[in-house]
Amino acid sequence: MRDILPADKARRERVLSVIRDRYLAHGFDEIETPVVEDYDRLHAGIGGDNEKLSFNILRRGLDADEIREAAEDPAELSDLGLRYDLTVPLARFYASNRGQLPGVFRSIQIGPVWRAERPQKGRYRQFVQCDIDIIGDDSSRAEAELMVASLDAVDALGLEGATVRINDRRVLDWMLDSFGFTADERPGVLITIDKLDKIGPEGVGAELRERALRQGSSTDPVDAFEEFLRRPQTMEYNPYGERQIRKALPDDAPDEIVAHLVGIGDAVAAGRASTEPTEIPLVFDPFLVRGMGYYTGTIFELAHPSVAYSLGGGGRYDGMIGRFLGQQVPAVGFSLGFERLVDLVTAEPDAVAEAVVLIHDADVPVSELVAHKARLIAGGARVRLERRTKNLKALLERSAADGYTAFATVSTGAGALELKPLN
Amino acid sequence: MRDILPADKARRERVLSVIRDRYLAHGFDEIETPVVEDYDRLHAGIGGDNEKLSFNILRRGLDADEIREAAEDPAELSDLGLRYDLTVPLARFYASNRGQLPGVFRSIQIGPVWRAERPQKGRYRQFVQCDIDIIGDDSSRAEAELMVASLDAVDALGLEGATVRINDRRVLDWMLDSFGFTADERPGVLITIDKLDKIGPEGVGAELRERALRQGSSTDPVDAFEEFLRRPQTMEYNPYGERQIRKALPDDAPDEIVAHLVGIGDAVAAGRASTEPTEIPLVFDPFLVRGMGYYTGTIFELAHPSVAYSLGGGGRYDGMIGRFLGQQVPAVGFSLGFERLVDLVTAEPDAVAEAVVLIHDADVPVSELVAHKARLIAGGARVRLERRTKNLKALLERSAADGYTAFATVSTGAGALELKPLN
Repeated sequence: MRDILPADKARRERVLSVIRDRYLAHGFDEIETPVVEDYDRLHAGIGGDNEKLSFNILRRGLDADEIREAAEDPAELSDLGLRYDLTVPLARFYASNRGQLPGVFRSIQIGPVWRAERPQKGRYRQFVQCDIDIIGDDSSRAEAELMVASLDAVDALGLEGATVRINDRRVLDWMLDSFGFTADERPGVLITIDKLDKIGPEGVGAELRERALRQGSSTDPVDAFEEFLRRPQTMEYNPYGERQIRKALPDDAPDEIVAHLVGIGDAVAAGRASTEPTEIPLVFDPFLVRGMGYYTGTIFELAHPSVAYSLGGGGRYDGMIGRFLGQQVPAVGFSLGFERLVDLVTAEPDAVAEAVVLIHDADVPVSELVAHKARLIAGGARVRLERRTKNLKALLERSAADGYTAFATVSTGAGALELKPLN
Repeated sequence: MRDILPADKARRERVLSVIRDRYLAHGFDEIETPVVEDYDRLHAGIGGDNEKLSFNILRRGLDADEIREAAEDPAELSDLGLRYDLTVPLARFYASNRGQLPGVFRSIQIGPVWRAERPQKGRYRQFVQCDIDIIGDDSSRAEAELMVASLDAVDALGLEGATVRINDRRVLDWMLDSFGFTADERPGVLITIDKLDKIGPEGVGAELRERALRQGSSTDPVDAFEEFLRRPQTMEYNPYGERQIRKALPDDAPDEIVAHLVGIGDAVAAGRASTEPTEIPLVFDPFLVRGMGYYTGTIFELAHPSVAYSLGGGGRYDGMIGRFLGQQVPAVGFSLGFERLVDLVTAEPDAVAEAVVLIHDADVPVSELVAHKARLIAGGARVRLERRTKNLKALLERSAADGYTAFATVSTGAGALELKPLN
């Protein structure tokens, strides 16, 4: 975890404000959930590996006997924990508040989450997630609304040219079936396929074969999959549309799933066309996996030409809300990689009317200084008071670095201020 | 803890945005600290009663033996905790980052804190604090800058007419000394004086006498204090200035402290004069105590004629930063009661260009809908899609309640939209 200093904090707030503004324009509504959730809910098997990374809160008022008894079952020591994502809290929120929400609920949730990961460069144990979700719509319109809104937000941050890589969990399931992998083998195979970008087709083939041999399974499915991976046309995904989706898959891909994917593309094209006539900013990737076990349909990631890593992603999780509500409700979400966006966005601060540093001698009466400050603020300026130091140049440089645009010196009884530009 | 639904969340964000804007204009810089701090720092004896209310995080990776050993010393089960205020984290932040901050550092910190209080109506265990602090300035200018900025923020929220009740811990110490209370008796006496608003002068006298008798101390100081409390002029605090401050105190109040209090008043008057010629919005209250043990000088509370409770407060805590830095640094802070302000502020949402609900038949193609939506958004509107329901009137009412201002119905192939006002 880390402290955020003024310049960083100001940039973070600017990025948040742009994203929030765009999502609100697209008809999403912001909500807030407590950062602390019940221990049992956080450890219900929905959160995947993140459950193991959660920070748990010590139950209050435990006596010595209760602590001793908990030695064999440490879960007894906690009744609450810090959330590790915003999706589990959203599902709980929807189940709790459904009666007060629209039939199709489009939510914005922006806030910190915590994971006890090993510290790495650029990763922190507290970080901000920025999610939109649509609950109650099983049509491709929901995916399209999420994508159009997120592409609009990323554009508004000055990161034009983003695309969405898209796949469907049902495509993966069907494809693995068609090669002859069993349902039991599927989770392991998906973990290997997820490494395709890193280890390439040969690496994937070798790892799958090694696992099949180790488990005493047939290697025929691996042979079939490798042959498919080697097809030259597999990697030609553009332009997005039915022809290319079918070309990227084994023959006879299920019509319903293909139609859902094509429908998303058409709707995204329609939603983006008002800004500029463009090709569909979607790329079908039959090997996109995404780790979370709760995805049931479409999955996607946000890509930008300036970086190799994804800037966000999401998918359909039609099963999760039913876990809390006892009734199936379709849901799909898109999470922007806020911390990565903050690093990429270089936009300058909004031009403020004026940001003025008043540099004063030590003997100027407090009331006089405060009155100067108040007059400038009333005129729309941002104002900081600084006592004059020996090294005036350093003071001016620091003020300019802090975003101030003008300065004036104040001596006792000197009358009106003379503002000079800072640069 | 609680969920925050869209209408509430929007109001909270509006209030935050007004406060942040005003504080930035007054030359404060926003920072952010992690919500999780080291257990030892949260339990260093600085946080007063709040330390006992902290949520502690279970140490990760404890084995059964370690848990058993901790039965006698439960503090061993935690290495981290959720912050219970923003002041302890600020002091730690300043000590860690001092080299990158201006000589006089004016900070804004807005964020949630947690206290394991018994649930009461309108109080939550997670709530937002909104603090400004000035570190590195021991003059009355610092107090004045905090007060002028906070009064400006409260004005900007539409709550004009607020005043600041002010006192000084050194005044209380001197006053109790002058009545003959010993330094040992002082903390208990202050706790009783803090109840003056609730139990009145008789209640205070009775409680002080009862304690003195129980402890076998002399009751002479209680008699002297009661006599002073009964002086008719004690409660005449206005107008703010040296004459009234001296009149509200026993004779021969220390010149230095009185001058500091008068200086704050003059500077606040100067800082407020640019908006309207007004009397000083300060009220001297020699019996204002404020609970936190870390205050060393000025203490104050924000009062508003519309409510009996305070809307914020703060004071000088010149000793605390030294605890972390090993070097004394003056500091003074003002905390706005964000949750109370949110309840009071009734301001309407900002007038958006237009907020449109598109009510569509079930058979309208997704692409057509998304294209309508995109065109309206590109024109500056906020847009929500709703499928037409049998009860159109209920749908329109709900949309209006959610802040939408216009609607249009969309049927397949119907051409241009016709927007109608919602009301």
